[in-house]
Formats: sequence, structure tokens, C-alpha cells
Amino acid sequence: MPTSGNAVIGQSGGPTAVINQSLVGAVYALQASIAANENKVSKILGAHHAVAGIINDDYIDLTDRDPDFLDRLANTPSSALGSSRDKPDAAYCQRIFESFAKQDVRYFFYAGGNDSSDTCRIIAEMAADQGYDLTAYHIPKTIDNDLMVNDHTPGFGSAAKFVAQAFMGDNLDNAALPGIKINVVMGRHAGFLTAASVLGRRPGTDDGPHLVYVPEADFSEEKFLADVQRVYTKLGRCLIAVSEGIHDADGTPMMVKLQEDVEQDAHGNVQLSGSGALGDILSDLVKTKLGQKLNQKLRVRADTFGYLQRSFVGCASEVDQAEARRCGHEAVKHALAGDHKSGSIAMIRQPGSDYKIDYQRIEIKQVAALTKHLDPSYITDGCDIAESFVHYAAPIVGELPVIETF
Amino acid sequence: MPTSGNAVIGQSGGPTAVINQSLVGAVYALQASIAANENKVSKILGAHHAVAGIINDDYIDLTDRDPDFLDRLANTPSSALGSSRDKPDAAYCQRIFESFAKQDVRYFFYAGGNDSSDTCRIIAEMAADQGYDLTAYHIPKTIDNDLMVNDHTPGFGSAAKFVAQAFMGDNLDNAALPGIKINVVMGRHAGFLTAASVLGRRPGTDDGPHLVYVPEADFSEEKFLADVQRVYTKLGRCLIAVSEGIHDADGTPMMVKLQEDVEQDAHGNVQLSGSGALGDILSDLVKTKLGQKLNQKLRVRADTFGYLQRSFVGCASEVDQAEARRCGHEAVKHALAGDHKSGSIAMIRQPGSDYKIDYQRIEIKQVAALTKHLDPSYITDGCDIAESFVHYAAPIVGELPVIETF
Repeated sequence: MPTSGNAVIGQSGGPTAVINQSLVGAVYALQASIAANENKVSKILGAHHAVAGIINDDYIDLTDRDPDFLDRLANTPSSALGSSRDKPDAAYCQRIFESFAKQDVRYFFYAGGNDSSDTCRIIAEMAADQGYDLTAYHIPKTIDNDLMVNDHTPGFGSAAKFVAQAFMGDNLDNAALPGIKINVVMGRHAGFLTAASVLGRRPGTDDGPHLVYVPEADFSEEKFLADVQRVYTKLGRCLIAVSEGIHDADGTPMMVKLQEDVEQDAHGNVQLSGSGALGDILSDLVKTKLGQKLNQKLRVRADTFGYLQRSFVGCASEVDQAEARRCGHEAVKHALAGDHKSGSIAMIRQPGSDYKIDYQRIEIKQVAALTKHLDPSYITDGCDIAESFVHYAAPIVGELPVIETF
Repeated sequence: MPTSGNAVIGQSGGPTAVINQSLVGAVYALQASIAANENKVSKILGAHHAVAGIINDDYIDLTDRDPDFLDRLANTPSSALGSSRDKPDAAYCQRIFESFAKQDVRYFFYAGGNDSSDTCRIIAEMAADQGYDLTAYHIPKTIDNDLMVNDHTPGFGSAAKFVAQAFMGDNLDNAALPGIKINVVMGRHAGFLTAASVLGRRPGTDDGPHLVYVPEADFSEEKFLADVQRVYTKLGRCLIAVSEGIHDADGTPMMVKLQEDVEQDAHGNVQLSGSGALGDILSDLVKTKLGQKLNQKLRVRADTFGYLQRSFVGCASEVDQAEARRCGHEAVKHALAGDHKSGSIAMIRQPGSDYKIDYQRIEIKQVAALTKHLDPSYITDGCDIAESFVHYAAPIVGELPVIETF
């Protein structure tokens, strides 16, 4: 006899353009099970602000939401249920079980990145330890694209599309009013999103970004300045993509190295987003060290793309949307099948020239609290991204707008 | 007998998403005149990097460019000919005439904002003084929307659409992970673009931005902090739009007041864009003054939208595109008609409920070096934008993506 009870879905960590697709994919699959009288799920509950909502018995009933509403919700960026950055400890998890028991929750779905999958893993393990019958599935999500096992993650394609379109436009801007321009892209430990800055470069042109710095390559001020000088001397301009998480050879983030006041969040991470400091520091560095050498009137500017990368409306990748929806569906399918008490869904790319994704159930511990990095072969000379990365990322991002120049 | 010679087109100042539409609109009209054997224009020359290209005899021949190329170019953001921030003095203008005489240039079209229209005016007046037969027309362009006489300017609608979509997304992000978020929007003296932050707010919701600060209302730190505290206390979050050009009651920009090191550009303007400093300063102010009072773990973040507002590909307003194209066309039409040796094109909105624009020839001096400001009736309580502004701006921006929330 199958486990019967209620289902809770939560959305954790940073929002993305498609995390509501995963929510809606899961809701549709659960509604289908209810409609088929499978006697597994009674109510579908959304955790309002993730684990923080659960411990306060704060749920949004999703059981009878109609498809028109759900489809509009799926196409809306950000986490519609609300998110949380709480990282539950043992006492916190105990309160989660109390709420689950009170609500007769037997299925738990948690969409998030590597921190969030670890939360899901802890809850699943504690449930097993305490003999509480719970099936817990992690649904992959992160614009950072840094989950192990997965070819890529839901959220990355849309954020990458935003970054690519931003660089396409800023490259044209930099060509119109030449100077040195530094754009800081999200990415604490993994450089996938920063690498996406090259996706709109047209072969055989002098399109930028001309320099790309990712956390996977140690950052050196000396090399950076030499790179900038080389490009500027050749082209009379230089467009630069920089991950917020670039660090020196000792692993010290440049943000920390170059700035005294830093703020730490609840996970013990230094605040890298939501501030223009890194861009401004690098901009000052170039002005100070190269201004005299290259051009007295050197224009050096920095922009930090910030939260727009994950939240901008009207720029989602259609492939990303469909895949995120499917991940929500697959998590429910495996959970209701009842073969395993926990798992995560991984997107595996099939070999061959055509782009095709397999959705496989894996153990949560295969992704929890681990970070995937850019393959070293994608990084050239420590300051650029290889064409092989474009082949990898282009199908995930989809078609980019056509541009023309003289 | 009409004046006969060559035509030069230049693009000046900051790029926009639609300045290439104006270029192409002018080129098509000039090509039509050539095709009709009107014997007014022989060659159509693009000034490579505006006035800086002219004094170096650096032109791109546009005479025989085919429509497929031109249509792709029109849909590409930024200034395809290249721009310049040079502000010509008398000696510089003399070099412009020397180049014009050498190239037999008799028609000059210059797309730009108020600084650029002033350049166009000076060149037209010097031509008249020196007895050089030149017809000079200014084509309106600026994302700031601050040209006098005009209902609005080409470039504003697309930049406003970007800002509106950015705030729509960031409002959802701020609702998912509540805190205080400050977004800095371009606008040195005029707050139109910052006001566009409200265009995606849905009536009857708690959608942000909840506070909007524009240069037309004096900025006071005390009022700002009180406003933020009031909104945060009520909603548990606060999304704020701030013009880069906000200033105190004495007219001192907050950027200057709050920061020691400032950089000035060739026009004597303080650098406000291409830096995250203002956002970070305001963010620190809120953390320092309200952190203890409101919430020890208060999340305060700032993003500066930067050059994306004028250059992002794939986000142009269709209305803006069509109007910019038409302005280029109208400038050529009036110049070739030969009734005036100079002029500018103004977009005048017809009275009535339907949105309709008249294109009128005006004197350059009606727009040159002047700044239009937000009507005071659009600003409420010094910290918000009235619904009347939405009625004004919505037809210019066009439809925004549909979003859904619980």
C-alpha cells in the first residue's frame, strides 16, 4: 500500500527566471495523481518562504489551482512561494518534522542549489532516523550551473541568455564610445555565467568581451593589467567580464583582498552580490595603473549586473523553461513511484550531435553541498573562454537576437 | 535651383536602442531622393565617431547600402557609426567646415540629445556667418527624455521598457527574499527614466518600487531614512528607485556630497554612470542608520543598472523603434524641402484619448542645451510617482510581460 498524505513544495535560495516552472511542473504531476485517485496525495501545500514557512505552519494551498493561473505563474520569474536563506540545524529540522506531522506531510519537494539540496538531504536522513515516513526529493535549480552530475541546471540558461544579451549590447556601446569597460557577473565559485558573456560574440569580428576572468583561474593583478594593456593597445577599447568570485592564488577573493569592509551572510559566505564595489575597485586599479601609460583621458567604467541576471522579466530561455518544468514533473513521478525515500533529478546530456536531455533520479548526496566547476579546457590563457564552451551552452540558451554592424 | 552636394549623418552622445533606426530612416529618405533624381544629394556619408570622424575625414559611405543590411542595422542597439563626446569649440568647428568643403557636404544630420543639438546649432550658425551653404538638422535622441518641446524622445521608450522590466523582476525577487533593495537608474537632471520604474506595478498589490527619488525633488537623508523605515515597517521589505542625479536642496549631487573622489568628463559633468558608488553609499547609509532599529539581520542591497539601460539587445519598444525611424525620415524631408537652413524634429502628442504623434519642424535653439524636467504633478510626497505618469508613458513603452503571483 502506498504512502498516503499531503505534499509540500518549497523554493529555496536565490530566485531564478524558471523556478516557478519547476513548481508548476510538480503541481501538475501531483494534481494528476489526485485526479487519478491514486490515494497517495491529498493536499498540495506550498511552503511560504521555504523552511522558514514550514516551521511556522505557513502554507499556501495549491491543490485546486487552475491551469490558467499556474501557466501564468510558471512564466513569471522569481520564487512565487517566497524563498529563505535559513540553513536548518538539528533543532530547526525537528520543528520541520513537527509541522510535517501536524499537516500529515509525507512528500517533500525542495527546489534549490547545492546548499538547498543539502538541507533536503539532512531532512530526509533525520526522517529516516526518527522513523517518520517521508519521501524527500530535491529539484535542481541554480543560475550558477554548479551542481554535480548535471549537464546543466534549470535557471542557468535564462540567466546566461540575459548575460549574453547584456554583453552583446555593451560590446556595441563600447565600440561606439571606446574605452575600458568592466562588467561583474554573478558566480561565487563557478564561472559558467561569466563564461556565457561570450555567447553573442560573432566569429571574425572584434566583438567583446575581450577578456574573461572566472573563479576557476587564479586572478593576478599583474596579469590582469598586462592583459588589458595588450587588448587596449590593439583595439583601442577593451570589454571585460569578471566573476564576482575571482580570487588570488591563495584563494582569497579579490573582493576581500581589495576591500576592508566585508559582510558575511548566514552561510558564512562573503557578500559578493548587491554591491558595485568589486567593479569600482577594478576600475580604479586600471585608471591608476594604466591611465598614464595608455591614454590620459582613458574612459574606464564598471557595471555590476546584479539581481537582474536572475530576475529580469521577458528574457527567459524557452529551453530552460521547458527543462525546469520537466524537472518538477520528474521529481514527483519518482517520489510517487515509491522506490526510494529520497533523491534528486539530474539532467544528463545524451552523446551525439543533437541536443537531448535525459532526466535521471540520483542520490541527493551526489549533488549536496558540492560544487561543479568549469572544465579547465573551457578556459584559455586564464583570460578567455574557448569555442567549445559556446557549443556546450548555445542549445541551453537558445537563439540570440540578430545584430548588424558596419 | 536646390542646393546640391553630399549629405553627412552623425550619431552623438550616449547610444540608445533605437538611434540606428533614426540613421536608417534618414538613409532611406536620402536614397529615395537620389533614386528620384532630385539632384540634391549625391553621396550619403556616415560620420565615423561623429564630429571626431568629421575632422579626420573619416566617413562610411552609406549611399548604396541595401535594405536587408539597413533593416538589420536599424534593429541593432547602440550607435553603429560610432559616437563621440567631443564638444566642438570654434577652432573645432572650423575643421568641420574644412572637411565638409573638401567632401562637398551641403546637408548635415546630427542625432543626439541637448548637448549634441547645441553642437548642431553652433555649426549651423557658423556656416551662416561664413557664407558656407549648409543645411543642418538635429534628430532628437536621448534615453533621458529631457528635450524641450518634445512630448518624449526616441530612445526613452526602450530604456524605460528595460527599467520597467528590471523593476518588475526585482520586485518579485525582493518579495521572495525580503529586504531593502536600492536600484540606481540613469538620469542626471531629469527623472523620467527613474519614474519608468513604476510602469510594471500592478494596482491593488504591494508591488514595488515603493519609493522613487528623482532629481526634480530635493533629496534629504533624513526624509529618505524615514521613508524607508515607514515602508519596511509596513511591508517587511522595501524596493527603491533612485536617479543617479539626486541632489540636496543646495543642488549638490548626493554622489558628490557622499563621496570624496569624483571624476569629471569633457562637458564638465560629474561622472555618475559606470560606477556602483551611489548605490553602495545609500546602502551603507540604510544599514548604519536603520539596521539596529529595524532588524539586526536587515538585508540591504544595491544594484546600479548602468549601460544595460541603453544598450541591452532584445528589449526595444516597438513604438520607440518606429518613432525613431520616422524622426530620421522627417529631418531629411524638411532639409531637402529647402525652406530652412536648420531645424530639429519634435514629437508632439495630439490631444485626445488615442495615442498619436505629430512630427513638427522646430528651431534647434528651442531644444539646444536646455533640459526638460518631470512635471511636478508626476511626483508625489517627494518619494513616489503618480498614476498620471503611467498614462503618459505606457503607450511609449508598449506592452510589458504578464506576471502572476499568489
